[in-house]
Amino acid sequence: MELIEFTPTREQFSYTFGGAAPVMRIKPGTALKLWTEDAFNYALRSVEDLASNKISLAEVNPQTGPFYVEGAEPGDTLAIHIVDLTPARSWGVSSAIPFFGGLTSTDRTATLQEPLPDTTWIYEVDTASNTVGFVARHSDFTVQLPIETMLGTVGVAPPSREVRTSLVPERFGGNMDTPEMRAGATCYLGVNVEGALWSLGDGHYRQGEGEACGTAVEGAMNVTVIIDLIKGGGPAWPRIENDDFFMAVGSSRPMEDSWRIGQVELVRWFEQLYNLHTMDAYQLLSQMTHAPIANVVDANYSVVLKAAKKHLPTVSAFDGMHALMRERATSLGSISYNPHV
Amino acid sequence: MELIEFTPTREQFSYTFGGAAPVMRIKPGTALKLWTEDAFNYALRSVEDLASNKISLAEVNPQTGPFYVEGAEPGDTLAIHIVDLTPARSWGVSSAIPFFGGLTSTDRTATLQEPLPDTTWIYEVDTASNTVGFVARHSDFTVQLPIETMLGTVGVAPPSREVRTSLVPERFGGNMDTPEMRAGATCYLGVNVEGALWSLGDGHYRQGEGEACGTAVEGAMNVTVIIDLIKGGGPAWPRIENDDFFMAVGSSRPMEDSWRIGQVELVRWFEQLYNLHTMDAYQLLSQMTHAPIANVVDANYSVVLKAAKKHLPTVSAFDGMHALMRERATSLGSISYNPHV
Amino acid sequence: MELIEFTPTREQFSYTFGGAAPVMRIKPGTALKLWTEDAFNYALRSVEDLASNKISLAEVNPQTGPFYVEGAEPGDTLAIHIVDLTPARSWGVSSAIPFFGGLTSTDRTATLQEPLPDTTWIYEVDTASNTVGFVARHSDFTVQLPIETMLGTVGVAPPSREVRTSLVPERFGGNMDTPEMRAGATCYLGVNVEGALWSLGDGHYRQGEGEACGTAVEGAMNVTVIIDLIKGGGPAWPRIENDDFFMAVGSSRPMEDSWRIGQVELVRWFEQLYNLHTMDAYQLLSQMTHAPIANVVDANYSVVLKAAKKHLPTVSAFDGMHALMRERATSLGSISYNPHV
Amino acid sequence: MELIEFTPTREQFSYTFGGAAPVMRIKPGTALKLWTEDAFNYALRSVEDLASNKISLAEVNPQTGPFYVEGAEPGDTLAIHIVDLTPARSWGVSSAIPFFGGLTSTDRTATLQEPLPDTTWIYEVDTASNTVGFVARHSDFTVQLPIETMLGTVGVAPPSREVRTSLVPERFGGNMDTPEMRAGATCYLGVNVEGALWSLGDGHYRQGEGEACGTAVEGAMNVTVIIDLIKGGGPAWPRIENDDFFMAVGSSRPMEDSWRIGQVELVRWFEQLYNLHTMDAYQLLSQMTHAPIANVVDANYSVVLKAAKKHLPTVSAFDGMHALMRERATSLGSISYNPHV
Repeated sequence: MELIEFTPTREQFSYTFGGAAPVMRIKPGTALKLWTEDAFNYALRSVEDLASNKISLAEVNPQTGPFYVEGAEPGDTLAIHIVDLTPARSWGVSSAIPFFGGLTSTDRTATLQEPLPDTTWIYEVDTASNTVGFVARHSDFTVQLPIETMLGTVGVAPPSREVRTSLVPERFGGNMDTPEMRAGATCYLGVNVEGALWSLGDGHYRQGEGEACGTAVEGAMNVTVIIDLIKGGGPAWPRIENDDFFMAVGSSRPMEDSWRIGQVELVRWFEQLYNLHTMDAYQLLSQMTHAPIANVVDANYSVVLKAAKKHLPTVSAFDGMHALMRERATSLGSISYNPHV
Repeated sequence: MELIEFTPTREQFSYTFGGAAPVMRIKPGTALKLWTEDAFNYALRSVEDLASNKISLAEVNPQTGPFYVEGAEPGDTLAIHIVDLTPARSWGVSSAIPFFGGLTSTDRTATLQEPLPDTTWIYEVDTASNTVGFVARHSDFTVQLPIETMLGTVGVAPPSREVRTSLVPERFGGNMDTPEMRAGATCYLGVNVEGALWSLGDGHYRQGEGEACGTAVEGAMNVTVIIDLIKGGGPAWPRIENDDFFMAVGSSRPMEDSWRIGQVELVRWFEQLYNLHTMDAYQLLSQMTHAPIANVVDANYSVVLKAAKKHLPTVSAFDGMHALMRERATSLGSISYNPHV
Repeated sequence: MELIEFTPTREQFSYTFGGAAPVMRIKPGTALKLWTEDAFNYALRSVEDLASNKISLAEVNPQTGPFYVEGAEPGDTLAIHIVDLTPARSWGVSSAIPFFGGLTSTDRTATLQEPLPDTTWIYEVDTASNTVGFVARHSDFTVQLPIETMLGTVGVAPPSREVRTSLVPERFGGNMDTPEMRAGATCYLGVNVEGALWSLGDGHYRQGEGEACGTAVEGAMNVTVIIDLIKGGGPAWPRIENDDFFMAVGSSRPMEDSWRIGQVELVRWFEQLYNLHTMDAYQLLSQMTHAPIANVVDANYSVVLKAAKKHLPTVSAFDGMHALMRERATSLGSISYNPHV
Repeated sequence: MELIEFTPTREQFSYTFGGAAPVMRIKPGTALKLWTEDAFNYALRSVEDLASNKISLAEVNPQTGPFYVEGAEPGDTLAIHIVDLTPARSWGVSSAIPFFGGLTSTDRTATLQEPLPDTTWIYEVDTASNTVGFVARHSDFTVQLPIETMLGTVGVAPPSREVRTSLVPERFGGNMDTPEMRAGATCYLGVNVEGALWSLGDGHYRQGEGEACGTAVEGAMNVTVIIDLIKGGGPAWPRIENDDFFMAVGSSRPMEDSWRIGQVELVRWFEQLYNLHTMDAYQLLSQMTHAPIANVVDANYSVVLKAAKKHLPTVSAFDGMHALMRERATSLGSISYNPHV
């Protein structure tokens, strides 16, 4: 298996899905060691750095990529297996950006109220305990929280000639901001344009479900992934598989529509996997789905629908791609999987 | 501790929160062994029984209660600790009621389309393996799923003179349909009327998050609870505590509002528990909240917000009520807690 | 036609639909001259009176009624024809109640922001010009706006044993807050309980569509209505007819669901009125419906769907009830209709 | 005033806002006579032509343009005054596209139900009576409806490098589908990229508010517009002015957010126009806004907020641009304004 290392220069970042020239052409079956900048583009480095001075929402979530996958055509399925996510800095950062986030009015849920106070938090990484440190800004409360790395943003170029900001998740993936996008996960995305043009970024050292304040513990990341291609079978919405779960992700507004999208996608998958009638797949999943919210802040809200494999007969999705990639990953050496707890 | 046993007659069921005369007066600190009928009022007993013939949505979720708690006044906090939930029948039942559920149009999300086919599924209880059996109606697929008992409906009389159906969750609790309402959980509800007038029902042998098709594996239940009263401190929305998590539940439409309600409630709780500034509570919870959806079907959608105790300094909520009730529960004898997995 | 005059005492007001004893029994075909108190219960009388001190949202929209209509049974249709609405005071009042209204966070669209400043505006009635005067609180801007009287709240007792606050509109009508509820309109409501138990209140001297700040130019009102009963045919959601339009009102959340409800109700009405196939009614109304928003503030949002009669063949709805009531109204003497402009 | 005539070839159509090369450079102050193809790209020409066979949602709403306006820079305001809209064919067409429209489940409001039957309606234009004829497909009902021409789609290139389909309205305008976009209206759009890159299309011979079934009476159109540029002052969301109203349009999901966006935009405009405090502008508009829904079908829903000039002191918006353009329009000769009724 070929292993490519790539650290983008500042000029090489893209801020959209679609619309950017590929940084590289790769073959299906390639492994990549990538470096991703933090969501704020390294603009917030201390609690004195405030988002209202330093951040433009038109240039967040810098993407490493896009990569052109040889042979990928519309209708195909791109498989992105995350082998490892390791913090690339000794600190992470979070911010309550004015009029951005879940517990404030925004440019969409518009009100006439004043914004919440622009505030920045710095989290020191403690590699010994594998934690990041929360330090209250208005009292002396501190607490250590486990590092549970994930990628906020994984996606491909959208269909219909569109170019979309890396801020808003959609059918093509993008800024779904789910903790499920972690080491050990295989993400399946429908290919919309030749070469697929996938990219990733927005590493989180840790994030709660919902990403309530709008930002996670954001940080630069060392990312190891394996890429492969399945001809045909492109799913309508992003799917994720790991050793334990089949998952689908819906991203829309209002949030019940995100849920509907993801739950229907999982029903369709189960019809296929277990040769089930629609009504039986609907019923079975009604009794076994986990439904964690991913984000309520990225303009489109994301919901993850998960079905545990342990309850089910063994089947093989996408021609056994996930198991295959797990095996290949072992050949990459000392990669430690990072099960969230 | 006094232990009361009560099995309602069919005439004693209530179908509302508020508006029904109490079946009994109890003192704070009482334990109760109760029996609850299934959500369908025992009307669906085979796959031949169809909801469209046998069910009126005006008479589902029959409630055991209401109980009048002596000394309870508006503004107080009612604590309901669930000690044990044991299936009271050898089978459970689920139904895709026409124009009810999450992946169909409804009387609210109204369309001109035909309904999905009215279908009933029967799940046999296997006490040896502690599972219920899913049997597909349109193929020969079967699978055993673990029994994970919970109560769909726990609530008190609403404020403002209202009487509300046991179908729709709200500020007063009610049909939240969250798997978190299981043995080992303490539910805190704000008291709105003298005596609190709490009731419960709608036992589920198992339910996926979201309750996608609108119904769980519904079944009659043997319920053991302990009731207590905290003067004052009534929360705006339902809170739940177990050994592992602090939780709040929001129920509204659209689903982002359910999330907002629950997340704000948890922020307010954390301000109190850890003496945190609002912005620090907001930030801290943004990095540690779990946000499972409870239901997307009961007219009001419910979302649960959870913060894991293990990451946090030890504190005592509601004067240590949860720990106290856990201790009292042990005095009730051979109760096995039922951690979901 | 019998004409009953009734001015409630303060103790006779009700604050719910359902749950209150009738103030009177009337026969179908009765006219009533009623007096309604303003939505704030006469608590705000100058710009110094602030909602946060003087108002409880549990006691707003005092209702005149409920009235028991002899012979009314579940499934019937109650017709309420508004003959005249005349201001009963020389001033009206509006308020930006903290955390209530459309351009602020609320108890449902919950955020952590500060409320907007609690502010009261008094509007003097000028009977000569038939206007109310807006007087800015923060500059010397003033403007006269035409009086266009309407009733915020018209409803019957809800089904399923429920009792609902007069603050929130629903299937049974209630606080729909639409300017269409004015003199010349006939409102059709499905009867849910014996006697129908209708009431009305919340007079507005004027209101914009949406009722953006949460309150209209609120004022006590002299109300003349005629009541009649149609056996059977109770509509699922409120319908309104005037000389120019057939209308239906949906009230739910999110607002697209309010729209869906009302648009489906109008499609169902058109199937009946013109013997149309569902798809043809859907298409025809797609090209001719007016869709003004009524309120975005009353917890449930209301949308009105209107189809102009002038484009359509003449038909008779509900056995010609509207025309009949218009004729009867003339017998009541010098009633001036009040077409909005 | 320069007058340019332009009829695009089929290859010149664009299907996005942003991303397409300009068809022409024009100077501010130019008048244009344009031709626009119908939303279906001339693919539906009889009731036998069905959307599921002939239409791809990736190629609807072909745009005439984009036009590069000399001197236009980000932050400026583009003014598009519609002088005349005249049907360019003798028939219009409407379609209930499967899983598209307001009273069906869609790819976002996803359910497991079957689609509504794919159906096409042809409307003959009667120039004598200025009507289009509705002909029921399932009975012999027919009715003539007044022609009230409008443009579904008017917009500029979006910010943040994005390229967006001509199907979905947003901050940059686009497929707002409001009947207010008719002859006599001036639309103000914030410029996001050099040259503004505006385009228009999707002519409707008639449309109900909401565009319930997803499509209007669609038809090719002869379009006369005047274009001008105001340096600076670019509004956050589209504004419209005609002789009678100041308007703002919000487009998002859920629909209450569309309303919030538009109502806030109108408050901000009134603060400016009348030098009002935010709370006074909020109050005044609460009592005088009209709030018709524009569309509930284009993925993003659009709501129009309107304030009648007749109640207000005379002021001049955008340096009197609307009055100026109205005057210029008269110089173009026999243009008949088309007030909707």
